[in-house]
Amino acid sequence: MAGTDSTKHPDAALAGRPAPAIILVEPQLGENIGMAARAMLNCELTDLRLVNPRDGWPSDDALSASSGAIQVIEGARVFETTPDAVADLNLVFATTARKRDMTSRVVTPRQAAAKIHEFMGGDGNRAGVLFGREAKGLKNDDVTQADAIIMAPVNPAFSSLNLAQAVYAIGYEWYLAAIGDEPSPQLATSKETRPANKAELNSMIQHLADELDEAGFFHVAEKRPVMVRNLRNMFQRANLTEQEIRTLRGVITSLTRKPEK
Amino acid sequence: MAGTDSTKHPDAALAGRPAPAIILVEPQLGENIGMAARAMLNCELTDLRLVNPRDGWPSDDALSASSGAIQVIEGARVFETTPDAVADLNLVFATTARKRDMTSRVVTPRQAAAKIHEFMGGDGNRAGVLFGREAKGLKNDDVTQADAIIMAPVNPAFSSLNLAQAVYAIGYEWYLAAIGDEPSPQLATSKETRPANKAELNSMIQHLADELDEAGFFHVAEKRPVMVRNLRNMFQRANLTEQEIRTLRGVITSLTRKPEK
Repeated sequence: MAGTDSTKHPDAALAGRPAPAIILVEPQLGENIGMAARAMLNCELTDLRLVNPRDGWPSDDALSASSGAIQVIEGARVFETTPDAVADLNLVFATTARKRDMTSRVVTPRQAAAKIHEFMGGDGNRAGVLFGREAKGLKNDDVTQADAIIMAPVNPAFSSLNLAQAVYAIGYEWYLAAIGDEPSPQLATSKETRPANKAELNSMIQHLADELDEAGFFHVAEKRPVMVRNLRNMFQRANLTEQEIRTLRGVITSLTRKPEK
Repeated sequence: MAGTDSTKHPDAALAGRPAPAIILVEPQLGENIGMAARAMLNCELTDLRLVNPRDGWPSDDALSASSGAIQVIEGARVFETTPDAVADLNLVFATTARKRDMTSRVVTPRQAAAKIHEFMGGDGNRAGVLFGREAKGLKNDDVTQADAIIMAPVNPAFSSLNLAQAVYAIGYEWYLAAIGDEPSPQLATSKETRPANKAELNSMIQHLADELDEAGFFHVAEKRPVMVRNLRNMFQRANLTEQEIRTLRGVITSLTRKPEK
């Protein structure tokens, strides 16, 4: 029955499922709050909490930077302190960009997401993730509110995620955990030769298209682009090797050779 | 020797390893190019290619939005067409936000990252990922340059990743694949102390149990073992350091000090 399909739709699948809260501690720019809200809604996260936002709340800048994530912005709750913001949560993570001189468990976003997903399956369990101020991050007093620290793996020589990207890294992993990742399909590659590069593929397609023009294959001029694209897709999907491209060019040449008189 | 440590440093580990190119097709705002460059460098991606950027190149807006990812901005190369930009690549993915009415393989960022990482281990193999214009995405003609499509799992009711976030989703997954298996959860410890050993933990628990005996805490003798075990479990889960154990012992001592007469 058609109706049963809806349970497999990601939207329906997550609709009734609890999702973690995102807690921004002392965010400075409304624009960054808006971009974080946008990142959240992409991942079906809607519980946004703000601790003492510098420029006040509500914020027009946040609303316009949210690109339409209005339900997140309008549903946001403001708290005076971090302990107030996490009072109802029983699993809290703190995101930090650098190691703290503190004793805490450190996990990756993926590990945190798996834990949150598993944890929230329990009755009445509520989880949340703390994010600090732009540039400065969380204060140690905020970090102590958390059960563990999340550090996203980043270039040790350039560790500079913006707030919305940090939120997105967590949201993305949580969303994958919640909907379940698909098994990896294989793209076949041959060992005899090397995969063709795009210049080789494109010039073979061009060769073919030229010959088809010559042969009057494209009766209807307007349809030529889509027909060439369809041909191209077929060859592209074949994951051709450089050797195969040469073979195909030989085929084209051979097929179009004018009979000797 | 101190010098050998550098090979285990993540920076050094990736330094000699090929990384995929990020190709932005007809990006509009320099600011978005800069934010994408910033996202890239967090993931040790440096090969940025721009196809026909609307506002020209170089761009002051891009440089300032890159937050210091200068090497990516200054190393960026500009191409007139997408086929030119991917000519030297032999594995290309195209990112799209929605399903296309085309026959193509669709993979997740994680699947694409695993494939890119595996593929680039082969001699001379080069890979890249195409990203379309802000809001509009890639044209079908650009998508046909790719071997497969990457779609990040997003809320079907709100699919609105900005360009830098889309780049970051791919970069993040590739970086995880490149640095190897995720670091296992670890205990970050400050430099002044070390994780407590079991003798220290046990003797603290013994101290506590003795004091509780003294205070008449264990009314029912048969339940004492399980109650002590439960207490022990709580402290065990805390992964205490040696310093923290000493602090706790101080707490116990302090709480049980007899008032002076």
